[in-house]
Amino acid sequence: MEFRRVAILGSTGSIGRQALEVIEALPDRLGVAALTAERNVERLAEQALRFRPDLVAIADADRAEDLAERLRGTGIAVAAGREGVRRAAVAPEAGIVLGAISGVAGLAPVLDAVRAGKTVALANKEPLVAAGSIVMEEARRSGARILPVDSEHSAIFQALRGFEVREVARLVLTASGGPFRGRPPGELETVTPEEALAHPTWEMGPKVTIDSATLMNKGLEIIEAHWLFGVPYDRIAVLIHPQSVVHSLVEFVDGTMLAHLGAPDMRLPIQYALCYPERPPRPWATVDLAALGALTFERPDLQRFPCLALARRAGEAGGTAPAALNGANEEAVALFLAGRIGFTQIPALIEAALEAHRPVAQPTLDQVLTADQEGRAAARRHAA
Amino acid sequence: MEFRRVAILGSTGSIGRQALEVIEALPDRLGVAALTAERNVERLAEQALRFRPDLVAIADADRAEDLAERLRGTGIAVAAGREGVRRAAVAPEAGIVLGAISGVAGLAPVLDAVRAGKTVALANKEPLVAAGSIVMEEARRSGARILPVDSEHSAIFQALRGFEVREVARLVLTASGGPFRGRPPGELETVTPEEALAHPTWEMGPKVTIDSATLMNKGLEIIEAHWLFGVPYDRIAVLIHPQSVVHSLVEFVDGTMLAHLGAPDMRLPIQYALCYPERPPRPWATVDLAALGALTFERPDLQRFPCLALARRAGEAGGTAPAALNGANEEAVALFLAGRIGFTQIPALIEAALEAHRPVAQPTLDQVLTADQEGRAAARRHAA
Repeated sequence: MEFRRVAILGSTGSIGRQALEVIEALPDRLGVAALTAERNVERLAEQALRFRPDLVAIADADRAEDLAERLRGTGIAVAAGREGVRRAAVAPEAGIVLGAISGVAGLAPVLDAVRAGKTVALANKEPLVAAGSIVMEEARRSGARILPVDSEHSAIFQALRGFEVREVARLVLTASGGPFRGRPPGELETVTPEEALAHPTWEMGPKVTIDSATLMNKGLEIIEAHWLFGVPYDRIAVLIHPQSVVHSLVEFVDGTMLAHLGAPDMRLPIQYALCYPERPPRPWATVDLAALGALTFERPDLQRFPCLALARRAGEAGGTAPAALNGANEEAVALFLAGRIGFTQIPALIEAALEAHRPVAQPTLDQVLTADQEGRAAARRHAA
Repeated sequence: MEFRRVAILGSTGSIGRQALEVIEALPDRLGVAALTAERNVERLAEQALRFRPDLVAIADADRAEDLAERLRGTGIAVAAGREGVRRAAVAPEAGIVLGAISGVAGLAPVLDAVRAGKTVALANKEPLVAAGSIVMEEARRSGARILPVDSEHSAIFQALRGFEVREVARLVLTASGGPFRGRPPGELETVTPEEALAHPTWEMGPKVTIDSATLMNKGLEIIEAHWLFGVPYDRIAVLIHPQSVVHSLVEFVDGTMLAHLGAPDMRLPIQYALCYPERPPRPWATVDLAALGALTFERPDLQRFPCLALARRAGEAGGTAPAALNGANEEAVALFLAGRIGFTQIPALIEAALEAHRPVAQPTLDQVLTADQEGRAAARRHAA
């Protein structure tokens, strides 16, 4: 494949750091065009000195001077603030943009990259969850290609390759079930943030790990899958699979299925997206099915994990409803991590926020951001 | 898809009958151009009256008159003998030829169809096992396409779609393990044909069912996979999977895998091949993974099931060695079914036949057929 330089939006986070491991392991194929971070100047500077991008951007403008100081004499350009991050998103040297900012802050730069016709490897859920109709419409206009980085969507993307969406009966997203899968309903009220942060199979950032414990993670992935693959909600199912080896399945109209399997290692889907359509011979981890012995599956318990149904309901309502859901969830997770609410209050706050929200159809980006703020405010209100 | 008429070579056997069920269920897509049988005139006539092919052929020429009598006044042409079957294999009305004759008798007509540039859906193992180099070379010359019908090879064919063979690290053929999977080694000597014929998951003809109990079935499939996909023997593995739901897997060079799953129902791969590249919305059976609960995997026991290693050895030796192996196996299975030898003598006779055989490289069809006869004779000799 031709050498490809990557702009990483959010390079100091979990996905960003793993992307740099992938890039470092494939020096003939991948390089770095730009790096951005929210506020971790120290790590960003360290990464820049190692990978020598053309541009680095720090969202927290107050830290730009510190960053410039650390990179003095290197010839690496330093940009600051939200505008600086957006400059990185459209860096002309970048053959692909990795959207790895966590939360709704990733929305504007990803949308910039899409509008610029970039190939975007998308790890950041919010652009599709909160603004799926806008992102997909802009991609259609500019010809930008959106490649999934989530292991589930990457699995479906790989299983679908060579086939048509009209051959699909159902997309089946697998979920580990999180740390509370076997827990009796009554005990969920008293679980601590520490317990919720102990994910059985995947190592991820705290927000995503809590989403995984509530199953909201899977709910948001239903919405993402809807936009990425153009499949209606009633044909996107969720299946609990505690070993996290089958990353998702496509069920075809003849009743057969293709499943994508792999070790639970995010470097695999990151590498697949960054090198697409090539598949480099770099196995970060492999799976030995005989050693594993069994892959197990069960239906999700919608009673104990109401977030799944809430996300589906917001997705089906459409318009700004998923943005409100997502804002309410971010707020509720933050409140839980701060010890201010119990675990089972997370879905309760989201449900209250959804009920308070009046969705706007075909929203603009401003309306999406307003819905996000309303969702957060409603969650806070109901927590008080 | 355009309407496609099928020539079924071996329509009264298990695969042939299931193919007719598929054709009957898709009257807008599939019809019948020709039917052939070895000697079951009654069933062949019944099928012809129902599906109205242009031509029927009966291999046992003595029964041609009876067949003609039964079809008098229908306008269906009747052909007789091996030549009659070969006429059906190149029937000009046939858009696709299904090779469903059991055993080495299927070799010549399949080769005719390949030489005629037909698309051949291949259920019959022998053309590739015994004469893989000849069949693939003729297909290259004529432009004939060979589509697998075996559930394992169909699975790999589907998982590979959209990808390149150079992206493949290993093909992993799954095997149910047959009825004697858990059986202690000492007890295998005394198993009866009745026990061996009771397959846990698949319903198949007697020869294939015994092959499945000895694992020779999987050994022959290794050789087929080698020819169908052009992958060397050391990159074709076997994995025991008792539920027969994962039909096979492709492991890619990045360490991830695509698995094809489906109910153990031969109508699914038959339908896929007959309608390829379309996938009609006709699920003969579906799989509910949550209801199933677990898919299990284990390594094959090469000690107790030596046929797997014997087939791999013959494949790697190349030339006429697989033909001799296959002939010896057919003979040994027949002797076992007749109660003349014990179950564990099957691999012993095959091994003796292989050791007696001096393989011819780049064989002609005649040399392949001679090797087949030698294999049979050697097995008989060692049984005596």
